[in-house]
Amino acid sequence: PKTLVVSDSAEWDRAEDLLNADLRVAKVLGFDCEWVSRTDYHGPVALLQLATVTGLCVLVRLCKLEEIPEGLKKILADKSILKTGVDPLNDGKKITQDYDIPVKGSVDLRNVLRRFVRGINPNIGLKKMAKDYLDVDMDKSIFLRCSNWEADQLTPEQVNYGATDALVGVDIFMAIVSRRLFRSGIVGNLWSDDDLFKKIQAMCQGLVDVKFSA
Amino acid sequence: PKTLVVSDSAEWDRAEDLLNADLRVAKVLGFDCEWVSRTDYHGPVALLQLATVTGLCVLVRLCKLEEIPEGLKKILADKSILKTGVDPLNDGKKITQDYDIPVKGSVDLRNVLRRFVRGINPNIGLKKMAKDYLDVDMDKSIFLRCSNWEADQLTPEQVNYGATDALVGVDIFMAIVSRRLFRSGIVGNLWSDDDLFKKIQAMCQGLVDVKFSA
Ligand code: NA
Ligand code: NA
Ligand code: NA
Ligand code: NA
Repeated sequence: PKTLVVSDSAEWDRAEDLLNADLRVAKVLGFDCEWVSRTDYHGPVALLQLATVTGLCVLVRLCKLEEIPEGLKKILADKSILKTGVDPLNDGKKITQDYDIPVKGSVDLRNVLRRFVRGINPNIGLKKMAKDYLDVDMDKSIFLRCSNWEADQLTPEQVNYGATDALVGVDIFMAIVSRRLFRSGIVGNLWSDDDLFKKIQAMCQGLVDVKFSA
Repeated sequence: PKTLVVSDSAEWDRAEDLLNADLRVAKVLGFDCEWVSRTDYHGPVALLQLATVTGLCVLVRLCKLEEIPEGLKKILADKSILKTGVDPLNDGKKITQDYDIPVKGSVDLRNVLRRFVRGINPNIGLKKMAKDYLDVDMDKSIFLRCSNWEADQLTPEQVNYGATDALVGVDIFMAIVSRRLFRSGIVGNLWSDDDLFKKIQAMCQGLVDVKFSA
C-alpha cells in the first residue's frame, strides 16, 4: 500500500493525478476523517483520508492547506464517486461545516451490510467488519485516535492509523459487493467488465448519502 | 474487447507487449486452438487463441508464421501462466506435436468446476458454462467451427468465433475462482491484493496439466 501525505498544493497536485488514475479503474473511495476533540478544544477536520481500490491512500492535512484545492473539491462534491466508511455522511457534514464545501456520494458500510448480508446485525464497527470480511485484526488505539492531528508533523503511527481506516473501508466495501456480484452471476470477471461500476452503483441505489439507523 | 490477429513477426511483437502487460495483472489466459479437420485432410493447429483477464484477445495464425516467436514459446512453456479452457491439455499436446514446442500450465475448466462447485455435473461444454456463469448465450456454429482456418484471410466471423471461445474461457475461470475467493473471505479486494495470483495458483494446485475424466 502506497500512502501519500498532502500538506501543500504541490503535494496535492501529485496525489490528484494518482487518485484520478485510480478513479478511472473504480469510482469508489474509502473515506475517513480525523480531528482534535478535547474537552477544551474541538477542532475542524484536520485530516481527510481517501483510499482507492488499488490500495493507494491519500492523507490530506486540511488544517495545513492554505486553501482547499479545486480538484479535491470536485472529488468530494461528485456524487457518482462513492465514499465509503462507517458514518461517512457525518464526516462529510463536518467537512462542509468546517470548510464550506459540499461532500456527496457517502455510502455507509452498515447500510451495505444490511442490504447484502442476510441475518447480520449491521450495527458493527470497522474493526469487526475487518475481522469478518478481510480476516484482518485492526489495532484501534485510543491513544492514536485522540492524538494531535494538527501537529506540525504526523508521526508514522498517525499516518498508518489514518491510512488503515480508509484502506480497510474500501476493501470491506469491495468484499461485500464483489461477493454478491459473483454469487448472483451479475459479473463474471471484474477486470473485463466495462459496466462494473454501473452495476455497483445500481447495487447502492437508495444507500447514497443515507444515514444509518440501527 | 480488443482482438488482434497475428500473421507475421511484426504483428506478434506488438501483441507480445500487450499480452505481457496483462500477464503482470494476472497470470491467466483463456486458451483455445482451431485447425482444419476434414475426412481428407487433418491440418496442424492453424489458429491459437489467447485471451487475458482484461479482455484482450490475441489470435495467432500459427499456419502463417515463418517461425514460432521466442516470446510466444516462453508464454506457452511457462507452467505458472495458467491456460484455461475445455480440454486445453489436448490443445497443448497438438501444438507440441505439430510445432515441436512445449505447452505447460493447462487448467481444464471442468476440473475447476468439479473442485469448486458442489453437486454439479462437471462434464459440460463451454456453451453451458457460459450460460450458467456469465449468462452469455454462445452461438456455436458448426459452419464456422469447420471453416477454413488456413484461409489467406480470416473472415470477421471466424475472428469473432475464435476470440469468443478464449475470452469466455478466461471469464468463466475468473467467475468460478472469484466466487470462491470472496465467499470464503480469502480475498477482500481483487485490485489491492498483491498475492491474488499466488492464491489462485494455490487453488489450482493438483489441477495443472491434469486430464479431465468424467
Ligand atoms: Na470515521
Ligand atoms: Na478513523
Ligand atoms: Na478447444
Ligand atoms: Na474453439
